[in-house]
Amino acid sequence: MTSPQLYAPEWQVQTWFNSDRPVLLSGLRGRVVVLTAFQVLCPKSLAVAIPQALRIFETFEPKDVAVIGLHATFEHHAAISVPVLKAFIHEYRLKFPIALDQPNPASPIPVTMDRYQMRGTPSLVLIDRQGVIRKHSFGPVEDLRIGAEIGALIQEAAGVATLDQSSAA
Amino acid sequence: MTSPQLYAPEWQVQTWFNSDRPVLLSGLRGRVVVLTAFQVLCPKSLAVAIPQALRIFETFEPKDVAVIGLHATFEHHAAISVPVLKAFIHEYRLKFPIALDQPNPASPIPVTMDRYQMRGTPSLVLIDRQGVIRKHSFGPVEDLRIGAEIGALIQEAAGVATLDQSSAA
Amino acid sequence: MTSPQLYAPEWQVQTWFNSDRPVLLSGLRGRVVVLTAFQVLCPKSLAVAIPQALRIFETFEPKDVAVIGLHATFEHHAAISVPVLKAFIHEYRLKFPIALDQPNPASPIPVTMDRYQMRGTPSLVLIDRQGVIRKHSFGPVEDLRIGAEIGALIQEAAGVATLDQSSAA
Amino acid sequence: MTSPQLYAPEWQVQTWFNSDRPVLLSGLRGRVVVLTAFQVLCPKSLAVAIPQALRIFETFEPKDVAVIGLHATFEHHAAISVPVLKAFIHEYRLKFPIALDQPNPASPIPVTMDRYQMRGTPSLVLIDRQGVIRKHSFGPVEDLRIGAEIGALIQEAAGVATLDQSSAA
Repeated sequence: MTSPQLYAPEWQVQTWFNSDRPVLLSGLRGRVVVLTAFQVLCPKSLAVAIPQALRIFETFEPKDVAVIGLHATFEHHAAISVPVLKAFIHEYRLKFPIALDQPNPASPIPVTMDRYQMRGTPSLVLIDRQGVIRKHSFGPVEDLRIGAEIGALIQEAAGVATLDQSSAA
Repeated sequence: MTSPQLYAPEWQVQTWFNSDRPVLLSGLRGRVVVLTAFQVLCPKSLAVAIPQALRIFETFEPKDVAVIGLHATFEHHAAISVPVLKAFIHEYRLKFPIALDQPNPASPIPVTMDRYQMRGTPSLVLIDRQGVIRKHSFGPVEDLRIGAEIGALIQEAAGVATLDQSSAA
Repeated sequence: MTSPQLYAPEWQVQTWFNSDRPVLLSGLRGRVVVLTAFQVLCPKSLAVAIPQALRIFETFEPKDVAVIGLHATFEHHAAISVPVLKAFIHEYRLKFPIALDQPNPASPIPVTMDRYQMRGTPSLVLIDRQGVIRKHSFGPVEDLRIGAEIGALIQEAAGVATLDQSSAA
Repeated sequence: MTSPQLYAPEWQVQTWFNSDRPVLLSGLRGRVVVLTAFQVLCPKSLAVAIPQALRIFETFEPKDVAVIGLHATFEHHAAISVPVLKAFIHEYRLKFPIALDQPNPASPIPVTMDRYQMRGTPSLVLIDRQGVIRKHSFGPVEDLRIGAEIGALIQEAAGVATLDQSSAA
């Protein structure tokens, strides 16, 4: 029933923070994955998406839900550096793994952002236990709705997909 | 596995608002029920629980989730009247059914509040599609968590219960 | 320079709460008066105006600023009673004097609300140390702006600088 | 009455943003100055102080109040660069002059921050029309209080009443 192209593509990462080794998407199979794409100089990322990612990380069990941050640098390339991200993660007390998306020398859009066809930051992708993309949204998402969607994916048996896969406003 | 006493008791109601006829809990079997107990002179009910009940009502499909308000008058009895509740519901634009709990002449605690052993207002009770109480909390609850719990109950097949049934802080 | 009609008219009150005796406007001469008109079944009164009145009451010195609440019952007359207001004031921990506006048998608009030509609730009136109306607004007002206006009125007659120069927490 | 040491010291700046030429404190004499010290990787600066500085800038007349931002880089020196600040100011739509504090080769504390003896970020300094420091605070400050203090300082030297007496929306 689910077409192959909905399987979440593997991400490609320049540097990982909060993880001793690279975190492979394939290694998270069996867990619900919440992928939050952000930029440290994007006001809505900082005011809305990062605090929400923190709440998700604190609300769900690691065995059920993996929260992954993705710094998708598609603007202000000259401003973003590893020390900026390191200081940011320290100051905001983020504990979940955060990836610096792999730059693409041929484009301002980094590799993972391009693979996932994200429209900007913040973006949020929900991937189910089988590795299928079940939600892909751009801009702020309400806690109640994202909570319901994560709760349904956790609960879901191996079977059928029912979640709305369209982008939020 | 689920002991009989966890089945949600039928509520007993003096007056219904936003419903032409009495809403029986037994008539909601097959849907997830969100029962929000509140009082119009309770600051946390007004600032937190009523806006959250509205968001729940607007987020989920009526075929999946029934939101029921319960005005559990356990204090300030002389202040609460049908006109007060009617005006309140009008001003706050509430559209879901709201019950005025049946007073108990022998106690300040009204009948339904007593049956559900609520500790005060606001209280929130989640009842699954089979009529079993799956959450019973007193005080504010985070949107993310209640969203996850409702999402899981909607998704749940007829089978097993996994939700935390303990009271929230 | 100030035309006589800008002098704030005396209020007319059915019942006072949080005051052993009637509070006359003429008795507040020499202080800045913040008059907050509200209704307990008005969502913006409860969510915005009452919390702001509380902050004003807690921020300024009583010798400089008198905060007066006015319950201007111009709708839902059947719902509002002295016990409703008493319970409300108790639950919201209001400590400043609150007046129940004098009903007008010939009109739904109570007497003081009519004298001040208020357009609805919440309304906010700033009266200077000489008894002159200096601001008259309907609907929510930003804290920064109302703070600046009160601060200017306090300073106006004082002549000398009294600002706190110590560090905030 | 005011001791000389309370006069605000001139700031020393590496780079100005949102201003074609250096902004001298001495050139602001006659206006109330709101100096907001912040860092782009400081959560409270971003969540509280910068939005408040924006509100202050939008609420008061430029002829009365000058808002000046000071990026006081006292930590994460390797992360902060002119492109970071430029991108930040662009993304947060800041229009008031912002100074990058002059680094001190002998100390992690930059020159202006040291002169003003700031304890960290965010810090807020109020300087009156005569150039005297009237408030010096560290950490978040309530809008109502800072509004009152600015309003008093504006009024202080003005002598006459200028408050808006029209109704708010």
